[in-house]
Order: sequence, then structure tokens, then C-alpha cells
Amino acid sequence: MGGDHAPEATLKGAREALEAWPGLFLHLVGDGARLEALMSSPAYRFTPELRRRAEVVHAGSVVTFEDAPKVILKEKKDSSIRVAAQLVRDGKADGMVSMGHTGAAMMASTLVIGKLEGVERPGLASLMPNLTGSPTVFIEVGANIDSRPEHIACFGLMASVYAEQVLGIKNPRVGILSVGEEDSKGTDVTLEAAALLREMGLNFIGNAEGRDIWNGRFDVIACDGFVGNVVLKSAEGMAKLIKDGLRGVLTSSLRAKIGAVLVKPALKEFFKQLDYREYGGLPLLGIKGISVIGHGSSDAHAVKNGIGAALKAAEHGINERIQQHLAKLAPKG
Amino acid sequence: MGGDHAPEATLKGAREALEAWPGLFLHLVGDGARLEALMSSPAYRFTPELRRRAEVVHAGSVVTFEDAPKVILKEKKDSSIRVAAQLVRDGKADGMVSMGHTGAAMMASTLVIGKLEGVERPGLASLMPNLTGSPTVFIEVGANIDSRPEHIACFGLMASVYAEQVLGIKNPRVGILSVGEEDSKGTDVTLEAAALLREMGLNFIGNAEGRDIWNGRFDVIACDGFVGNVVLKSAEGMAKLIKDGLRGVLTSSLRAKIGAVLVKPALKEFFKQLDYREYGGLPLLGIKGISVIGHGSSDAHAVKNGIGAALKAAEHGINERIQQHLAKLAPKG
Repeated sequence: MGGDHAPEATLKGAREALEAWPGLFLHLVGDGARLEALMSSPAYRFTPELRRRAEVVHAGSVVTFEDAPKVILKEKKDSSIRVAAQLVRDGKADGMVSMGHTGAAMMASTLVIGKLEGVERPGLASLMPNLTGSPTVFIEVGANIDSRPEHIACFGLMASVYAEQVLGIKNPRVGILSVGEEDSKGTDVTLEAAALLREMGLNFIGNAEGRDIWNGRFDVIACDGFVGNVVLKSAEGMAKLIKDGLRGVLTSSLRAKIGAVLVKPALKEFFKQLDYREYGGLPLLGIKGISVIGHGSSDAHAVKNGIGAALKAAEHGINERIQQHLAKLAPKG
Repeated sequence: MGGDHAPEATLKGAREALEAWPGLFLHLVGDGARLEALMSSPAYRFTPELRRRAEVVHAGSVVTFEDAPKVILKEKKDSSIRVAAQLVRDGKADGMVSMGHTGAAMMASTLVIGKLEGVERPGLASLMPNLTGSPTVFIEVGANIDSRPEHIACFGLMASVYAEQVLGIKNPRVGILSVGEEDSKGTDVTLEAAALLREMGLNFIGNAEGRDIWNGRFDVIACDGFVGNVVLKSAEGMAKLIKDGLRGVLTSSLRAKIGAVLVKPALKEFFKQLDYREYGGLPLLGIKGISVIGHGSSDAHAVKNGIGAALKAAEHGINERIQQHLAKLAPKG
């Protein structure tokens, strides 16, 4: 029910996902009567076969963007995001996908579903596009501030498992975000996090710089959640500036307008490559289940891809893999 | 002598600056014989009048991008960047402009020219473009890591003076970079820095988010140098990704190629608006003189604008203004 285009875009995305993946079963959490009515409408094209793999689960309220995340704890215990998290907690669902309030989704995932054993801080990852065709998993972007070295190292480990299992990248190249390539560059926290990652048996290749988020040199870049959140929002702001600016100049003269018509398909294709919607959402790693947190403005296409990412994460058992790695690190004897 | 296109682009930029600002006098620091030879060449168009306002100062070596910044302390005491800093230290020049090694330029500025009284950490600022026509002064981007709250507050103060005096922005709107707009959002360090800025008598308007770097809502955004450096390099990387990607799609089909010819002037104009070269370089604030540190790839246009920024900073006495502000803050009695 959360997000700018819910429940319409969410339902359409759900139907597309059911069509795409025959092994998928969905619980559709929200205003039961409204969802049933929409699904009965021919426009939504829920065939009897699809209908059998989609169960409506009623939730009495919705967290809005005006709410504080903690609203799920008391005032909105029956909110769709919390009810969805309970389905995962109770083993009725392997994972959840949401397009609403990021903070509320993180809180529901962490507190209701619970953290994986050995994970002190779950981390929100973002897939950053580049021109190599394989995105960089950038973690942590959920404002998980004042991370200690072991948190950042754990972010890197979890994202490496995600890159390998969900994105199909063999032996992902892992880096720590810092202010220079040289091993000596960084804060005490990043230097210690790098030392920890070096011991973890991952393919840790050293410090990444800000530019490396966009050039495909790393498959995983880990950092504190303050830095990651600021970098992600800065990138969103810069993308908006460029899109707004391009729109302006491409309508600034008759000549530009004519040219714009001709280049539009190519531009559209290019911006699609860079579009978050292709990845569907941000995986929250380190909880006892799967949680993919989509953008509030997600359309049906983004919803479908978010569901696909959650499905793949569940099928590949990323949490079991993360636990295996963590077990190797646990103090012995 | 530093930078990818030195000394040719530097000399051309110097000539353009001399032409643009009749009150300007330049010391051209570098390989004396080479500079004199180039300046005598008709291609460089140094007229006798311009020549009278340009004095060559010989320096025996150049810091290269392979060198560590500290090379200026012992091995390359006669490097052009250090000789230039000595001219400022000795009162022979009001400021210096460099296009070479950023770390070496920061070290020469800080150690040779020296810090302003009351400034513990000088800060490197970057002017970030947006569509309002007036850039945001973003400080600190020089990898000045582990800043304490008083450092960040001082960055904000110095950048506010710069915005007012050099960019002509009245009562600049100052913010602290954080992970949410609400006053409660941030780390202990950002919250304390915000509290300090509130007491400084500036137009402090609260927390800025990453996206605010690009939308013109703030005239000054202050942060720790780790975060700022990562954000700046991320933005450079993303800009490169978009430029490379656009170049690719605009030559991907005949239709796109024809359209590209038509939109090219508009695109060029737009990317010029976003181009760092328009601002000429990054001012290092908090030293006893002016130091503008240009991009290594600066062309003549960027060099000219860097000299213009240094000239304006010197003419408006930004350091006197910064000292006045700091004096008000000093403990009384």
C-alpha cells in the first residue's frame, strides 16, 4: 500500500511478476476490499491461474511519508509494512517487497523479522549503474551512521554474497570507500575495516574512491551509512539536475527541438540503463529473511523487478551463505 | 608548471587574465628559460604592455602527479608550487593559482604560506553548479578527514564569507550536510557543528541532504573532508559516466547521429554551465593569503577563471572578513 502509485502500480507489477515467474506465490498486503476489487477488474488482468498464486492479506492502515518510522511500533501496528514483515517472521513468506517509507520498511524488517545471527547492523544496499553492464553493489545507504569497522566489513561481506548469488558475479571485487587508492589512505575506521575484509577470504581489492562507484572497477563498495546515504542522495540530485537541464536545452530552440525528436529514443534507452527501476529496489541485507525496499515513485516495472530481486535472493539462499561466511569468522574453540 | 597542459595552457590562460583585468600583475613561476621562450613566441600574444605585468620567476623542478605531496618539503624545495607559495608568504604576491598536484598545492599553501590565526584546519571548497545560476560552495573536499565539530563550523564560516565576497551572494544560506532535513538527524559531530554554526551569526538554515548540493537551496554546505571528497569524486565519476554514455548513444544509429548534430550546440551550452572550468578552481580557505587549486586537466579558459577567482578573493579581502568573524567568536576577557 505504500508508495506514490500504490496500490495500482504495485498490483500491476505484482501481476507482471506472477506472469514472469511461474514458481512465485505472492501475499498482497493492504486494504483487502480495495485490493480484491481492483484484482477483479479486467484492467488488471489477474487470470484464474494468476489469482491462485496471489493471496490478499488485509492490513488496516498504511504508513505515509509524513509518518516517523517508529509509527509501526504502536500507532500503526496493523500497517501493511508491519503485516508484511510478520508474514516473513512467521515463515509464511520468504521475503517482502515494499515501495513505501524507507525508514519504516527498515524498522519493520529489522525489528519484526529480526537480524541474522552474528549481524549487529543490517545494511541497505543500492545497485549503482555503469557502462560495463554489471552494477556495483554500494552499501550502506540507509543512514546507518557511525558504523564501526566490523559493521563496514560485514556490509562488504553481505554485499559480496548478494553480488555473487543474485547478480551472478563470480568472485566479486570488494572495496572500501576512501579518499585515495593507496592502502594508507582513509580514517582509522576505514583502515581497520579494510584490514578485517582482507582476512575474510573475500576478493578484497583495496580502497575505492568516489569515482569508482560509477566505473565498474568494483563489484562491491562498502562504507559507513552516513557517507553512503549522502553519496546516493547526491547522485539522485545530480541526475535530476542533468535531466531537468537537458529537458530545458532540448526545447530551447527550434533546431534543438527537431534534434531532440531524433535523439529521443537513444536518450531514453540510455537513461533506462541508468535507471534504478531496472533493479527494482534496495536489498536490506542481514535480516532473517529477504526485504527489498523500492523507491516511493516505483512504477509497475520497478515493482516487478523488485519482486524478481527478492525471489532470486530467496532462491539462492543468500542468508545461508552469509551465515556460512560469518561462522568461519566466529572465534574458535 | 603543474597540470596536464602546462605550461602552454597555463601561459595562455595567464595572458587571457592579463587582458581581462588591467589591474592584475602575475608572477609566472616555472622553468624560466622555457617560459621566456614561449612568451616570446607570437602564438602566445604577450604584447609589451602585458609583458610588463608578467614576471617570470624561475623554479628548478615540478611536482608531478606521481609524487607524494611531502616531496615539496625536502626533495623538491625548488618546485614551482613551493616557489609560488613563498612569493605569497613573502608578500610579493597576494595569492597563488595552481593546476598541478592538489595535495602538494594544499601542503605548500598550508605549510609555506601558513594558516590564518584562529584557523586550525584550512578547507578546500568546490563550487557546485545548479540551475539557479548561482553555485553552492561545498566545503570540505580536500580529504581533511576526521573533522571535529569546530572544524566543520569554521569551514561553513569561511565558505559563507567566500560566497558573500567573491560570488556576491547576500546573506548566504549555510547548511550542514547530513542524512535528513530534521534538526535531530546526523552524527554527534554534525549535530554539534550545527549548534556551533547557529551561534555564529551567519544565516544558518539547518541540515542539507545530498540532493541539496545540486538544487540551489543552500549557498554553502559544510561537511567533513572525507565525506566531501567522496561526494565530489562520485559526482565527477557520474558526470563522466553520463558524458561517455551520451556520446555512445548519440552515435548509435544514423537517426541519433543526425539528431546529435542538431542538439549539439544546446548540449554543449548546457554542459558548459555544469563545467568546473567556469569556476576555474577550488579555493583553499583559511590560509594567510589566497590559494586557488585548479583541476589537473585545466585548459586556458579554466586557468583564466582560476586567476579571476584569486583576484576577486584578494580584492575583497576575504581573509580580513574571516578574521573579523573569528574574532567575534574568540572567548572574551
